[in-house]
Amino acid sequence: MSGLRRLSSRIVHSGPVATVRVDRFRYPDGTEAEREVVVHPGAAAAVAHDGTSLYLVRQPREAVGEPALLEIPAGKLDVEGEGPLECMRRELAEEIGMAADDWMLLKRLYTSPGFAAEEVHVFLATGLREVDREPDPGERIEVVRWPLEDLDGAIAACRDAKSLIGLMLLRQQL
Amino acid sequence: MSGLRRLSSRIVHSGPVATVRVDRFRYPDGTEAEREVVVHPGAAAAVAHDGTSLYLVRQPREAVGEPALLEIPAGKLDVEGEGPLECMRRELAEEIGMAADDWMLLKRLYTSPGFAAEEVHVFLATGLREVDREPDPGERIEVVRWPLEDLDGAIAACRDAKSLIGLMLLRQQL
Repeated sequence: MSGLRRLSSRIVHSGPVATVRVDRFRYPDGTEAEREVVVHPGAAAAVAHDGTSLYLVRQPREAVGEPALLEIPAGKLDVEGEGPLECMRRELAEEIGMAADDWMLLKRLYTSPGFAAEEVHVFLATGLREVDREPDPGERIEVVRWPLEDLDGAIAACRDAKSLIGLMLLRQQL
Repeated sequence: MSGLRRLSSRIVHSGPVATVRVDRFRYPDGTEAEREVVVHPGAAAAVAHDGTSLYLVRQPREAVGEPALLEIPAGKLDVEGEGPLECMRRELAEEIGMAADDWMLLKRLYTSPGFAAEEVHVFLATGLREVDREPDPGERIEVVRWPLEDLDGAIAACRDAKSLIGLMLLRQQL
């Protein structure tokens, strides 16, 4: 944050998904400006594979009019006191019914820093074993096992930013 | 949009950057739900290089508290009637003072489809030549020439989703 100071902040919209704030900033050169910001608690996501299959999900994404968008498992950091890794362990069980013994942080990224505060921690999850799947009742998630040898096909089929980044970082490693 | 019908839509917040809508949807199984959506006109971005240098930008991103985030040139589709390629030609001149003879669409992606409607068209721009730079007076953009041979260093330094995707797709091509 060095060089960019937030002087004040007020909430102008508060809804079930989106909170919008207007913040006043001072820049290193001393000038000030107001910016509208969509507040976000952050998220965690994981590229999970067992050496043979990638574990992806398809779910409706109403905001972009997609009935079944292909993504890597992910979730919002919306549980008080829960860090990104802890959040992702819970989401992996909820979304694909797996636990992972090995975790590696691949990247921390901003999805749309021009207007949204969202930061996503993208992990690599391996050493998978099955656990009871505990789907969130409000979500419509289909688990997709995708052949790891067709990782390039998954990258071509994917249009979700965090998922593309996770899959391409995995490709660099393999 | 097949299989996911928007039944109604109402605006619950309208600000200078963010407009928030609550939409009612019907799913393929006949059930209905309301979703809060951050409206966005879409954006265009470009990985631009001349065979020796990548042309990147650094700019303050107040939403994520970053005084100088490293990104590829980009802009919002906020000019009525202007398509993504036309928008990106204009932004390339405004942000880095270049025109490009060769354009290729690398990817269309959603930055954060869980809550935002933003779609970004990411182009590869080559065949560069200098034109007058016409910076937008409201923006604080520094042009960064990054050695193309250190593309991996740019990927490591970058935390912006659309930029990471553009740079990694370029890496796959080189």
